[in-house]
Amino acid sequence: MRLHIDTSRLVAELDTLAGFSDTAAPAVTRIVFSHADLKARAWLKGLYRDAGLSVREDAVGNTFARWEGSDPALAAVGTGSHTDAIPHSGRYDGTVGVLGGLESIRALQRAGLKPRRSIELLMFTSEEPTRFGIGCLGSRLLGGTLDASAGETLRDSAGDSLNQVRNQAGFDGALSEVALKPGYYSAFAELHIEQGPLLERRGVPLGVVRAIAAPASLRITVHGQGGHAGAVLMPDRHDAFLAAAEIALALEAFAKSTGAIDSVATTGICDVFPGAVNSVPSRVRLSMDVRDIDEKRRDGMLAGLERACTEIAARRGVTTETEIINRDAPATCDPAIVAALGEAAQRHGLAFDSMVSRAYHDSLFMSRICPAAMLFMPCRDGVSHRPDEYASPEAIEQGTLVLAETLGSLAA
Amino acid sequence: MRLHIDTSRLVAELDTLAGFSDTAAPAVTRIVFSHADLKARAWLKGLYRDAGLSVREDAVGNTFARWEGSDPALAAVGTGSHTDAIPHSGRYDGTVGVLGGLESIRALQRAGLKPRRSIELLMFTSEEPTRFGIGCLGSRLLGGTLDASAGETLRDSAGDSLNQVRNQAGFDGALSEVALKPGYYSAFAELHIEQGPLLERRGVPLGVVRAIAAPASLRITVHGQGGHAGAVLMPDRHDAFLAAAEIALALEAFAKSTGAIDSVATTGICDVFPGAVNSVPSRVRLSMDVRDIDEKRRDGMLAGLERACTEIAARRGVTTETEIINRDAPATCDPAIVAALGEAAQRHGLAFDSMVSRAYHDSLFMSRICPAAMLFMPCRDGVSHRPDEYASPEAIEQGTLVLAETLGSLAA
Repeated sequence: MRLHIDTSRLVAELDTLAGFSDTAAPAVTRIVFSHADLKARAWLKGLYRDAGLSVREDAVGNTFARWEGSDPALAAVGTGSHTDAIPHSGRYDGTVGVLGGLESIRALQRAGLKPRRSIELLMFTSEEPTRFGIGCLGSRLLGGTLDASAGETLRDSAGDSLNQVRNQAGFDGALSEVALKPGYYSAFAELHIEQGPLLERRGVPLGVVRAIAAPASLRITVHGQGGHAGAVLMPDRHDAFLAAAEIALALEAFAKSTGAIDSVATTGICDVFPGAVNSVPSRVRLSMDVRDIDEKRRDGMLAGLERACTEIAARRGVTTETEIINRDAPATCDPAIVAALGEAAQRHGLAFDSMVSRAYHDSLFMSRICPAAMLFMPCRDGVSHRPDEYASPEAIEQGTLVLAETLGSLAA
Repeated sequence: MRLHIDTSRLVAELDTLAGFSDTAAPAVTRIVFSHADLKARAWLKGLYRDAGLSVREDAVGNTFARWEGSDPALAAVGTGSHTDAIPHSGRYDGTVGVLGGLESIRALQRAGLKPRRSIELLMFTSEEPTRFGIGCLGSRLLGGTLDASAGETLRDSAGDSLNQVRNQAGFDGALSEVALKPGYYSAFAELHIEQGPLLERRGVPLGVVRAIAAPASLRITVHGQGGHAGAVLMPDRHDAFLAAAEIALALEAFAKSTGAIDSVATTGICDVFPGAVNSVPSRVRLSMDVRDIDEKRRDGMLAGLERACTEIAARRGVTTETEIINRDAPATCDPAIVAALGEAAQRHGLAFDSMVSRAYHDSLFMSRICPAAMLFMPCRDGVSHRPDEYASPEAIEQGTLVLAETLGSLAA
């Protein structure tokens, strides 16, 4: 089988997809079920149909584009990723897994493959936590990590429930019907940019992922005492923002002191109330993200953070409330798919590193219901979630080629 | 002259004014030129007219209600304060100076006074910096501390210019005509809640202010490097929020270490960009307020803060930009008005403390063009800029009584 990737078409499609955005280029903002997201979905479904794929959407908007195999009763081979984008981010995160997956299927079609297993391209809803505060919403529901009943309690910051929002977007089935039966897929492989600098630094074109880091995300609310910025004396203050500042710095210190390079922690949101220059902050809400490939070490950071909150709150006369949004277990990738990815790379003379994913992905939740693995391609300076995120056409071509080869062999 | 304060009417008027708000009671939010502010202004002007006062408004919405004296050519005696309110604040800050000033005039009228000098009640526009980032907008323009040309460059966070917003609100004269001629007022006295705990703690019903603290407000923008919260390793980070957290804590340390209880500093706003739980903050904007009654000591805190920014930025590989929004000189109150306030209190058998105002007020800017002083009344627990801000009817009555007595003697 001779595979040819139409790289210029694929790159042009990535550029077109980037145009469905609520911010001006190069910054991409595509929040789930926004107008930009719905327009992107419609455009993608057109591409799927052009490739002769049948399209199914579930109640949360996960989209399945199926290339029927010669033995449709067999479990299908899955590939895909997400197309939603956090505010002011770039054009490759997730999208290369969807459009690269599509081009892989088209390349296999052009090469004349008649797969035995069906190949399904997935576009997962809301991998990014921007709107509903929880990452991988679609794949969590698919993989059964998130109950339909828990999904129904989700609300966005405007107070709209997931059910209202998805219904308005035209997805009105029952959330309880989203979960896939175990055995539905025989394998799942996701192509993605690395979102880190390692491949580029080492000059290696591909990374085969053997494990996916265990993320936890949490919200800490600090309740202090407000007052007039001119009149409340320093010894009388219980400033919620200064306590929050200490908590964020404590989390950084824990992440830096585990002794492992894979420990990372971030305070990405800090909402200050009332938020006036001349008012002592009375309440602050921090949103934090804590990750490691080792669950015990990750949970050690969380325990340290809780102790720090207690100490800081007592010293400053404030109180803190911690809400764990999610606290997932890490995943080990399926050895057979990992081997298939490596063999496909070798067949095309491409070097690869065995690596771990510190970012988490829909594959983490797909791994709960089927064998799964991931393929990374380098991105410039390891930058992601920024407008200057960049993957070269060469990197995209090589990743897509090896994905196509792998899907072909898994479906054969 | 027998003065009687109609306290129940005055308290009822304060309660009515609190109803003009964009947040539900007890929280008051009345941003300059909002619908709530415009409705409050219309209602106030009705009260002024009911009291037989003639009403003038200038181009920025400062409102003057005049009780003509028997010798209208003489410089007038001024009193008044502001009615705008920061988000989620209370009902006494500023408003007791406006409605208490009105009741003082009505009390003098009822007592049969025929003042020689005219008495003018002022309602200053935008004492609070909420909308345009600068406090005492109206009195700065009146007192010539802010040039009309500088005023014309002001914009709110929606990007609307002061000129657009005031024009929409119906104030369309030239800003250059707002400044008052020196000598327009022979004296200005402002009644206000203390916004601090000292009077209540000492059980003293009145404070005669001898000096007003020198405020500075500034914005610091930290530029770091964004990226994916899972993938950017800790040693590679240039997190703008963590640098900002250190800067805010450094400012607190400077304010606590001057050796003077009158040194206060606050970080009231912290805007994090892009503001996603899984994104390393690339840019943070802090708004800070630094005050002291001693200008040199205040400027020492600012210099320390600048050094801290330099050190933190170098260590963390970020950059900082500091923008000084205002940096005002402190004011010494006029000894003759201070004496008049004290004598008025003594005539009514009321004790008073000589004190400094750590909060700043429109009187600070009025003091640039006329003799000025302030009268404080206690507020519960020293709380201000919060929904539970409270001044008792007794405190309001005593403050208004002494203000009326003073205005009467200054205008005689």
